[in-house]
Amino acid sequence: MTELKNDLFLRACLRQDVERTPVWMMRQAGRYLPQYRATRQGAGGFLNLCKTPELACEVSIQPVELVGVDAAIMFSDILVVPEAMGMELTFGAGEGPKFPTPVCTHADVEALPIPDPEDELGYVMAAIRLIRQELAGRVPLIGFTGSPWTLATYMVEGGGSKNYSIIKSMMYNEPATMHLLLEKLADSVAAYLNAQIANGVQAVQIFDTWGGILTTRDYQEFSLQYMQRIIDQLIREHDGRRVPVIVYTKGGMGWLEAIADTGCDMVGLDWTVDIDQAKARIGDKVALQGNMDPTMLYANPDRIRTEVKDILARFGHGNGHVFNLGHGITPDVPVDHAKAFIQAVKEESSRYHS
Amino acid sequence: MTELKNDLFLRACLRQDVERTPVWMMRQAGRYLPQYRATRQGAGGFLNLCKTPELACEVSIQPVELVGVDAAIMFSDILVVPEAMGMELTFGAGEGPKFPTPVCTHADVEALPIPDPEDELGYVMAAIRLIRQELAGRVPLIGFTGSPWTLATYMVEGGGSKNYSIIKSMMYNEPATMHLLLEKLADSVAAYLNAQIANGVQAVQIFDTWGGILTTRDYQEFSLQYMQRIIDQLIREHDGRRVPVIVYTKGGMGWLEAIADTGCDMVGLDWTVDIDQAKARIGDKVALQGNMDPTMLYANPDRIRTEVKDILARFGHGNGHVFNLGHGITPDVPVDHAKAFIQAVKEESSRYHS
Repeated sequence: MTELKNDLFLRACLRQDVERTPVWMMRQAGRYLPQYRATRQGAGGFLNLCKTPELACEVSIQPVELVGVDAAIMFSDILVVPEAMGMELTFGAGEGPKFPTPVCTHADVEALPIPDPEDELGYVMAAIRLIRQELAGRVPLIGFTGSPWTLATYMVEGGGSKNYSIIKSMMYNEPATMHLLLEKLADSVAAYLNAQIANGVQAVQIFDTWGGILTTRDYQEFSLQYMQRIIDQLIREHDGRRVPVIVYTKGGMGWLEAIADTGCDMVGLDWTVDIDQAKARIGDKVALQGNMDPTMLYANPDRIRTEVKDILARFGHGNGHVFNLGHGITPDVPVDHAKAFIQAVKEESSRYHS
Repeated sequence: MTELKNDLFLRACLRQDVERTPVWMMRQAGRYLPQYRATRQGAGGFLNLCKTPELACEVSIQPVELVGVDAAIMFSDILVVPEAMGMELTFGAGEGPKFPTPVCTHADVEALPIPDPEDELGYVMAAIRLIRQELAGRVPLIGFTGSPWTLATYMVEGGGSKNYSIIKSMMYNEPATMHLLLEKLADSVAAYLNAQIANGVQAVQIFDTWGGILTTRDYQEFSLQYMQRIIDQLIREHDGRRVPVIVYTKGGMGWLEAIADTGCDMVGLDWTVDIDQAKARIGDKVALQGNMDPTMLYANPDRIRTEVKDILARFGHGNGHVFNLGHGITPDVPVDHAKAFIQAVKEESSRYHS
């Protein structure tokens, strides 16, 4: 493999020395970029874009070249895993994802296979190999998955949801069914992430977008436990280098200690927690990723820079910070603001590193 | 005024002795009740229901009679305040609320009047007087409002929102405009709540549904500060009795200490915090309201009772707990489950009181 020219991200994940704070953005390959919109337009649908390695590669690399981030993340969707388990998945124009035949019964769950990632998700693996080749060592490549709980919400609700009443009914009334589904998802995801690593991703992030809708007890039992089950199965070293694992639970800032105890290397923060407080709570165990409010990118570049400086000052000196947004970048952010954000982190952070 | 037969709720708000834990449900007058649906159907639209005192009274009293809650809450909508400020408000069938002409500019904000609650919101006052009369002292009556920040989100976004990009742009780029709007809302709401109290509500709740989308700093500056401004203006005693003030910020469980410091009497909890931890943090200053996951009402009555017992045990002995859901009851909950919940609190809580 080509030598990595910029490994700031990987070093920061492991709380090693860096010259400045690395930065990337969740959903950085996305609709705010005209180039992404053009590629997607030509792909004939969102799923086609995910499933065509050349196009997935193209949009994964766009933010590295256009915005200057310190890591690429493979372009894909968390819901390709349930699709690989045999569920029909649709993305209607202007709609969110839908599973027209959701998982309802214990028999439905029993019938779900654990997919072979090199086979049913081979297009992701092909994309990873291509992206690594095209990156040519410029920055590291991040792989990802949804958490079992988050994937299950879509599979059981049949799509996005307001109150999560269907999956919560299953959780409360049919806990054995719920646990079997989460077990199968955890094992599917573990195999999927290990295949991503074998094919070339250099860090992996578990997105737990919907863990925050649970009580503390249910979060532990139905979300965190299964992220733990994944982490316990992961390849942690590849190609002579540690493969950092990042866990991000939106709305989970009350549970940072428990998340840090999973053995992950880095914990993702949403914007509702102050990063200095998060550092005081778990900074001796893990690195921290985050945590600017994504809507700050609607502010003018001066205001964005002020915010970047504030977050850097809160984190202060010391290692173990990857700058990021606290959630995904929104589709209508001006590209210049995204660039100004990345630039501000690069320029303002070196004072905190020697 | 008639003597109050059941004042458990008011006593618990003030951390006074009670024989058992009182209980009510946010949005208890609502679509899960067939009787509510019938009244609403006959009213010819949601706003008509709010604006017809006899009907608002009828649906406010339904949960007292049908489900057995320990407090009534006046039936209304938080958005009647912006409507009283002259904004057109519509509730389309199956849609959320819309303001077809949202607040955009500084001039828009300057043009907004502070409404006279006895005039523009006279129908609410009439409903309050009717409800008090019809309740005849069975249980106390709660009044309410949205927080200035929460009201502003609808006024600026023009309705519900996914990312709150419009109001956050205003907050970051035009903070003076944002503050002027919040100031006007705080003063409008303070006058509105004081009129509610003068007309007969015996406690008031400020619903800050969207404070939780802010950073800690922005929550303090743009939401909490204006709830404080309201509380500072409120009539705190009426008819020889203290009028408890309840503050509830959904998603604000990281900020409980700051909320308790506003001088409110009770803090509402969503279900993502453990009530024993909340009690340890602020239970020496304020009473606590909450905090069962509303979706627990999809579980069977036995499971609901187990959850009620768990929350009661977590709070343990001592005063200052009003049992409630952590957010509003959802429209498709079976009525029997709501009844089972209320019954379980009544039966299981007396062991924690002498």
